[in-house]
Amino acid sequence: MIPSESDVIELAKTLISRPSVTPEDAGCQQLMSERLANIGFTNETMVFEDTTNLWSRRNGQQSSLNDKVFCFAGHTDVVPPGNLELWHTPPFEPTIIDGVLYGRGSADMKGSLAAMIIATEKFVADYPSHQGAIAFLITSDEEGPFINGTTRVIDTLEARNEKINYCIVGEPSSTHRVGDVIKNGRRGSISAEVDIHGKQGHVAYPEHVKNPIHIAMPALTELSQYHWDHGNDYFPATSFQLSNINSGTGATNVVPGHLTALFNLRYSTELNDQLIVDTVESVLVKHELNYDIKWTFNGKPFVTEMTNSEHCFLASVSKSVEVITGKAPELSTSGGTSDGRFIAPTGAQVIELGPCNATIHQVNEAVACKDLEQLVDIYYECLKRMLTD
Amino acid sequence: MIPSESDVIELAKTLISRPSVTPEDAGCQQLMSERLANIGFTNETMVFEDTTNLWSRRNGQQSSLNDKVFCFAGHTDVVPPGNLELWHTPPFEPTIIDGVLYGRGSADMKGSLAAMIIATEKFVADYPSHQGAIAFLITSDEEGPFINGTTRVIDTLEARNEKINYCIVGEPSSTHRVGDVIKNGRRGSISAEVDIHGKQGHVAYPEHVKNPIHIAMPALTELSQYHWDHGNDYFPATSFQLSNINSGTGATNVVPGHLTALFNLRYSTELNDQLIVDTVESVLVKHELNYDIKWTFNGKPFVTEMTNSEHCFLASVSKSVEVITGKAPELSTSGGTSDGRFIAPTGAQVIELGPCNATIHQVNEAVACKDLEQLVDIYYECLKRMLTD
Repeated sequence: MIPSESDVIELAKTLISRPSVTPEDAGCQQLMSERLANIGFTNETMVFEDTTNLWSRRNGQQSSLNDKVFCFAGHTDVVPPGNLELWHTPPFEPTIIDGVLYGRGSADMKGSLAAMIIATEKFVADYPSHQGAIAFLITSDEEGPFINGTTRVIDTLEARNEKINYCIVGEPSSTHRVGDVIKNGRRGSISAEVDIHGKQGHVAYPEHVKNPIHIAMPALTELSQYHWDHGNDYFPATSFQLSNINSGTGATNVVPGHLTALFNLRYSTELNDQLIVDTVESVLVKHELNYDIKWTFNGKPFVTEMTNSEHCFLASVSKSVEVITGKAPELSTSGGTSDGRFIAPTGAQVIELGPCNATIHQVNEAVACKDLEQLVDIYYECLKRMLTD
Repeated sequence: MIPSESDVIELAKTLISRPSVTPEDAGCQQLMSERLANIGFTNETMVFEDTTNLWSRRNGQQSSLNDKVFCFAGHTDVVPPGNLELWHTPPFEPTIIDGVLYGRGSADMKGSLAAMIIATEKFVADYPSHQGAIAFLITSDEEGPFINGTTRVIDTLEARNEKINYCIVGEPSSTHRVGDVIKNGRRGSISAEVDIHGKQGHVAYPEHVKNPIHIAMPALTELSQYHWDHGNDYFPATSFQLSNINSGTGATNVVPGHLTALFNLRYSTELNDQLIVDTVESVLVKHELNYDIKWTFNGKPFVTEMTNSEHCFLASVSKSVEVITGKAPELSTSGGTSDGRFIAPTGAQVIELGPCNATIHQVNEAVACKDLEQLVDIYYECLKRMLTD
């Protein structure tokens, strides 16, 4: 049975109608697992604390590629709807107006989930004895603290030595039309809070104070102007941003005792956590600062590169987009983090490919119906290129 | 009648027992004006809003110095007592222990007020036909917002062209022993709040933000390291201190839209307000910042210098201290502001001379009884040197 194009819209609407604000799943994964079980998938629901996760897998026929796992990854949770009065249609009542599907999660990323399911159903119907294995890794905690979601599923798989080889994350990667941009990597993210100690006192007695603002600024200026790298073929240059700086008692005549600054780096694969930590601390030490610093490691950078292999994943996905849309996608590693950062460190090749992101996390989130239908075709093409001869 | 030395302690105790927390006077000025009326002073009470002020004057005999007015200036208000449990004796119950008088205002500056009154009573008794005039300018708003105190009395005097030529402010200028330091001037004070505008955005998209922390720091660093002057014979070098700097949304992944900084300069007579404003703004402009700035002019610097005049005020006060204590005082212009800044701009020569300041504004504020008795003698000597042949 070849599904009609409207099947993806119907499934997306059913998923959107379930108000699964993080960490709620609201039955979305149950619906997905039933559809997958019908076409031969084995489901494992992994509940960690408040988070529901689904790991579902269908093995194809024995072949030389039998050990290769092609995984669709995504999340059923959505961000809160925000100001309801600004929504033209109720956020959890999916509504189509002029060929556009409105609703919370339509673009991020229930539309992608629907497209993955429909594409897989079509592919399994067409190629029931496909090579390798198809898997789904779905969480309900991508928009939240991401503690009990993808990262714990990955830990579980790793513990039993189960690998993902190729992974498409359904994050809305596109800018103007579906498939115009795919993300073949993400920058790393590292944050720190630094507390610089001075000596408090009255402004009238500068000889008795050590002004933490004065002593901190040259070091922070140096860091903000530091040339970290040039980036590389896949990454823009590393970016350092001070996001918060606070010092002072509120009184204009008191020199404060300390200064607190928060900063974040989005960094390329030219750098690593340790190099960043060492560089920052060497600047602070060089300026003879007395300080405390607390680092937060948000995610290492990852990249999926072009290879000479016959089954190069990046080439296959790019070609799939080109075949369906008529134009090869632009590769990008820009933007924020995604759950890809938890999957890539296992050795998986990870690519983010989904609908346009113009309305995500906003009121009146929407996706064009034809984009979802095209996404079904792209995902189908990817499966075909990776899991058939 | 020559008062015994204990008169000053008795009067100080009476003043301390009146709980005149700013802007309350609690009858202190009434008591002072009665004492002064008894020795030929004419009193004017000037009430402005919540503040009580006393202007009291006694003209001496006709002489070439008849137009010279020697003024004692001070305040009857005191700062709040703070934590009562930390006081060994009740703050408004003056208590002498081992020759030390404890109580709120004992050092700042009811002890000085008592010494001024007793010295003047003694001087008028000894020299009823003194030259020039003696005056008292007393306010109940020196520790507060200083809006309705000395500055408005000065305005009133200026409006009728009444001048003060020599002024001793009874602020506790001394460090280790009475008269070891006198303040023959004060630095100017100017403050500003500067708001530096950037463009807010997500740290992951540095190309879309204008980080106000990054663009502000080089300018603020330059200002904090700027060499304003060397000071001069009477003033230390001008000091620039950033007292507050704040920017950030609290989130570590958001570049904020603006940065606010507060700073203060304590500046010498080598500079003036306009030069400071021009210099700061030229640095902000040079760094191409988009900013708003709000200036607060707290007080211009003033200095009372040594002159070749026979009646050099600074020389006379210094000699008086030396005659009584056996050691010439150190001249200083350091520390915070005082009401002297409102009197000096009229052309008056202003010197601050009072007891030791180690305990002022603290719990268990205290003054040595012998210091107050010595202060009576110093003030008396000053009157004698300035208003007799």
